[in-house]
Amino acid sequence: MSDHGVRRPDHAARRAALRDLLVENGVDALLVTDLVNIRYLTGFTGSNAALLVYSWDGAEERTVICTDGRYATQVAEQVPDLRAEIARASARRLVELAGEWQTGRVGFEGHVVTVDQHRAFLDWGTGLEFVPTANLIEQLRQVKDAYEVDRLRAACAAADAALATLLERGGLRPGRTERQVALELDWLMFEHGAEAVAFQTILATGSNSAVPHHRPTDAVLAAGDFVKIDFGARVDGYHSDMTRTLVLGEPSGWQRELYELVRAAQRAGEDALKPGVACAAVDAAARSVIEEAGHGELFVHGLGHGVGLQIHEAPGLAKAGTGTLLGGVAVTVEPGVYFPGRGGVRIEDTLVVREGGPELLTLTSKDLTVVD
Amino acid sequence: MSDHGVRRPDHAARRAALRDLLVENGVDALLVTDLVNIRYLTGFTGSNAALLVYSWDGAEERTVICTDGRYATQVAEQVPDLRAEIARASARRLVELAGEWQTGRVGFEGHVVTVDQHRAFLDWGTGLEFVPTANLIEQLRQVKDAYEVDRLRAACAAADAALATLLERGGLRPGRTERQVALELDWLMFEHGAEAVAFQTILATGSNSAVPHHRPTDAVLAAGDFVKIDFGARVDGYHSDMTRTLVLGEPSGWQRELYELVRAAQRAGEDALKPGVACAAVDAAARSVIEEAGHGELFVHGLGHGVGLQIHEAPGLAKAGTGTLLGGVAVTVEPGVYFPGRGGVRIEDTLVVREGGPELLTLTSKDLTVVD
Repeated sequence: MSDHGVRRPDHAARRAALRDLLVENGVDALLVTDLVNIRYLTGFTGSNAALLVYSWDGAEERTVICTDGRYATQVAEQVPDLRAEIARASARRLVELAGEWQTGRVGFEGHVVTVDQHRAFLDWGTGLEFVPTANLIEQLRQVKDAYEVDRLRAACAAADAALATLLERGGLRPGRTERQVALELDWLMFEHGAEAVAFQTILATGSNSAVPHHRPTDAVLAAGDFVKIDFGARVDGYHSDMTRTLVLGEPSGWQRELYELVRAAQRAGEDALKPGVACAAVDAAARSVIEEAGHGELFVHGLGHGVGLQIHEAPGLAKAGTGTLLGGVAVTVEPGVYFPGRGGVRIEDTLVVREGGPELLTLTSKDLTVVD
Repeated sequence: MSDHGVRRPDHAARRAALRDLLVENGVDALLVTDLVNIRYLTGFTGSNAALLVYSWDGAEERTVICTDGRYATQVAEQVPDLRAEIARASARRLVELAGEWQTGRVGFEGHVVTVDQHRAFLDWGTGLEFVPTANLIEQLRQVKDAYEVDRLRAACAAADAALATLLERGGLRPGRTERQVALELDWLMFEHGAEAVAFQTILATGSNSAVPHHRPTDAVLAAGDFVKIDFGARVDGYHSDMTRTLVLGEPSGWQRELYELVRAAQRAGEDALKPGVACAAVDAAARSVIEEAGHGELFVHGLGHGVGLQIHEAPGLAKAGTGTLLGGVAVTVEPGVYFPGRGGVRIEDTLVVREGGPELLTLTSKDLTVVD
């Protein structure tokens, strides 16, 4: 793979792509207030910001970011290529600027801006027309550029390395509690380069493995247990997401059978990942394997979700999922079958959709791992 | 202190208090969609829910919570006293119910509901009038009941114990990095009963201590450094918040002087905490001490904030703070003075406003701590 574009995100290219969407949506400018979207478009990571992007070609010199005095140094460092305004009420300042510049139709993020904020926009921006827009930047964010895939890869590598170290150390053994093992795994992700955990680690032993989103408790790991581990690392804002289910000691017949079923479903889901395929069809490819085995009602969630600057983002791979996959989209594939009171298995990878077949980012083995 | 009400929150009493506010605001019911507010009013901790509370006395049997199938067991356990509906689109289901019951004026959280959600409410709730309300539940949440103070106390105790253990072990010593020490402190909070950290721990050594919200880096602690540590634990959803600034070795003259100035300001702020006092006056009590020393422009943030189910909640103790304190309000008091490029000191406690003077929850000594 070429190294071009890997070392730094090309924020100007992202803003140019957004401008095409603004023209399509018939707005003169977009007021962006979602902080993740602002980070995506500019690189700014502070906790207070607004961004005003104009729709016309060559409008880059009119693009303005606003944040407050705490971040004056940071915005100059992180966003050297844009005009920056400093004001505590950052959205207000940009609405006022849009008014001074007689902007006309100003788009805003209808899924982000609250009713109270919208009312304030109308007060601040006399003469402006405010138009809700739907997930424009989230749509762009689905397709990851080379920099983003590189960072997702780094996040997945931190998680892979943490689990490998945990197993090498014998950290996963009968007698320890779910909480102890989860804490050690979290710690190991930091040691392997994570800046944060991607979400609260799920570590579920024995019958707890049948609870899809079980939180670690003082339950003690015992020989013969399934141990389901769903965890991820965050690196430069990008999240990894991986689930592995292991057995402490020799697996019994039902455990092997259940494991192989979920593994086959997971393989079917991954094989279905191709540009142009409907999101719902990917879910169906994995789900049908489980349904044919008679356990459809025990697969109680969607197959997967987009992952990037947020742990859950577009697209959704689910029965009711809409849209089709594009090359470069990063998703999880995570079927699970859960027998209440007995145990469950989930296997999950993070992958990038590619023309010739998906690129696997979570590299930990999916063979049924037996921990001695 | 009496044990009454300490072991379990009295959600019914909280809903009764809310009903008084609904009557004052002239709405027949309130549709609550903020998950923290739902937890406060019901105890439910799932990630998808809506709640419909009616305004009239004795309306408790009509109060409905809605969540999706993943949480069917959990909602029955956590909210045994309310009717529960199961639907994926939880807000939609409750708007439809409000319509069936011909509710009339339905309040919603104007600072929470997005423009898109509001548009959907209008589609789903034909015949209903939707009225934005402003921070009704946040207003109630300012005053902590006995259960909440008990949980805040437990969160503060976990943080106190973690810092004490870190110091006993010699974990804070020249040669370690900010990141290593911060990770160990986080780990120790878990060991002492935290379910999570309250926010990303700030650990800043040497000149980094002059950055108010510095994130831990690979900077190495050195003899003579100020080390500023701002951290907290979460217990049963409640957050603690404490800052201590220490010196590695014998403090120099300017360090002692700066420390004593901030300590005096912090004491003045805490002494000002009384029911009936204006929030802005508490800020002024501490700020004037620093201004009189000629360093007003180096105290670049507000004095403190409410703390509870969120790390930052109402009221704000700042120059522009509004409202007056009530007995039972939990706040932080955290003045700081920062010399750019040189070093800074912040000292912060979590306290509860009481008639006879504030109750201190963070018990770690505020004497200038010298680490050998």
